[in-house]
Amino acid sequence: MIDTLIARIDELKNPTVVGLDPTVEMIPQQVQTDYFEQYGKTPFAVADMFFHFNKAIIDAIYDIVPAVKPQIAMYEQYGIEGLSAYVRTTEYAKSKGLIVIGDIKRGDIGSTSAAYAAHIDGVKVGDDEFDLWHEDFVTLAPYMGSDGIKPFTSVVESKDKGLFILLKTSNPSSSEIQDVLVASDSQPLYLHVGKLIEDWGKDSIGAYGYSKVGAVVGATQSEEGRLVRSLFPHMFFLVPGYGAQGAGAADLKGFFDKDGRGCIVNSSRGIIAAYQKHDEYKNGGLDAVGDAARQAALDMRAELRTIL
Amino acid sequence: MIDTLIARIDELKNPTVVGLDPTVEMIPQQVQTDYFEQYGKTPFAVADMFFHFNKAIIDAIYDIVPAVKPQIAMYEQYGIEGLSAYVRTTEYAKSKGLIVIGDIKRGDIGSTSAAYAAHIDGVKVGDDEFDLWHEDFVTLAPYMGSDGIKPFTSVVESKDKGLFILLKTSNPSSSEIQDVLVASDSQPLYLHVGKLIEDWGKDSIGAYGYSKVGAVVGATQSEEGRLVRSLFPHMFFLVPGYGAQGAGAADLKGFFDKDGRGCIVNSSRGIIAAYQKHDEYKNGGLDAVGDAARQAALDMRAELRTIL
Repeated sequence: MIDTLIARIDELKNPTVVGLDPTVEMIPQQVQTDYFEQYGKTPFAVADMFFHFNKAIIDAIYDIVPAVKPQIAMYEQYGIEGLSAYVRTTEYAKSKGLIVIGDIKRGDIGSTSAAYAAHIDGVKVGDDEFDLWHEDFVTLAPYMGSDGIKPFTSVVESKDKGLFILLKTSNPSSSEIQDVLVASDSQPLYLHVGKLIEDWGKDSIGAYGYSKVGAVVGATQSEEGRLVRSLFPHMFFLVPGYGAQGAGAADLKGFFDKDGRGCIVNSSRGIIAAYQKHDEYKNGGLDAVGDAARQAALDMRAELRTIL
Repeated sequence: MIDTLIARIDELKNPTVVGLDPTVEMIPQQVQTDYFEQYGKTPFAVADMFFHFNKAIIDAIYDIVPAVKPQIAMYEQYGIEGLSAYVRTTEYAKSKGLIVIGDIKRGDIGSTSAAYAAHIDGVKVGDDEFDLWHEDFVTLAPYMGSDGIKPFTSVVESKDKGLFILLKTSNPSSSEIQDVLVASDSQPLYLHVGKLIEDWGKDSIGAYGYSKVGAVVGATQSEEGRLVRSLFPHMFFLVPGYGAQGAGAADLKGFFDKDGRGCIVNSSRGIIAAYQKHDEYKNGGLDAVGDAARQAALDMRAELRTIL
């Protein structure tokens, strides 16, 4: 799947992933009113408007971006109804040819981790297999070590899926644990984690030289990104933190390899809520959401191309 | 909620939490056959049998154990239907007076972490608040630092809920990251994380001297458990790894304080699948599952009491 992702990035000349992280505040006022009138002020109403909001964005961008990354927490907060909207979103995105990165950041051990691996492995009931989550990649947390990761790395091979494991995140307090200096080599912990990730992915390297086991490296970590790029040449990066979290294209130069490959950059609010920033779109409905998202995605592609 | 938990442990003289982590293999054969005949070999059939399996156990143990800990991964692997069974389980457990520890191990940052906090905070739609997950405590992963934890610690106060943050887990590969020696003091990373957890919980200390922000410390980590008990006197421990993962009561002596308080010990398979080990129960239905679970829970209580 990493080869498919890279090929699609090359084809579209666009290393962007659109973060589908809706909030009620992002939904156009008239759309909110319509759904709340129809379904009451209920989790179902919110979930259903999330799906149609996402659908408007997917319809507007599926031919210019390679992938979408729904953040499951935004749906999970609305319970079962919210998660149903997540699944409807991933299923619809795949039907439009988009690669789906499920931002789930799960992490556990043994049989529990194997259960979470159903996100990319599907689940068997009797002799039938069910793909219930429709994800091509998922994000994972590394704190519990190999026991948490191995059930996923085996699926990466058998089902041609991919992983992005937290390495250096984009938030200010990422330093509290990730930057702790390790006694053996006086290097920060995230480099130690990087070595683990490299090892977990060393048997899954694809045609472009990148492993199916990638890493999350925040766009706000400009220096660190340059360093991990040079240390881990086979590691593909999922890069959050662009735009809303303050990083721009200039910060990302060191994240790419000499061929302009090696990472995919996420933007969420900057694309999906772009309509709120433009006079021509801000009083519109879901069409305006889609039109503004397409324009913002094109702008981001142009901006990223200046450094490639 | 930590005070409620400790009071209930004292009342029942039982620091046990029953892990509700069902698998299809744990369901009595005749029950499997009945559900599969009725609903087909579908995720719904599995989810519905999980709920009724859990209900049989809850009905059998709610008056002798203070809490249950469903592991959300076991349900999440069956998609939306599975998660519905999780919610039915937590709701039913609460209706029987059990304290519910949602083993979700979520961890993210900022607005995403705030969204996950809906697990214990509920979610607002308009002016109405919905408690969609029915959990009193949740488990969290610490790798992203304070940004991931703070949205939960504020809820712990406002809604009287509790947290258990991963400190030292019970799995063999927990050493890969958690035991890395930190340069500044040559101490393992988990003690550094322990100091963070202590700090996150220092303003939430209840009547028994324990914070609403607790930690996960695996039962297999006998020495480490003793050490963190002495270093962090206000930190309440959730202790997985008893029984099936190899630890016994003797391994846990150092986890408790001088009053016999300070932790709650999880057993999953050893209680919920106990019927499979006894001739009198192993060919029975859900009644046998419940009867054997009750006996196993009483046995575990007796075993733990030998060290208190």
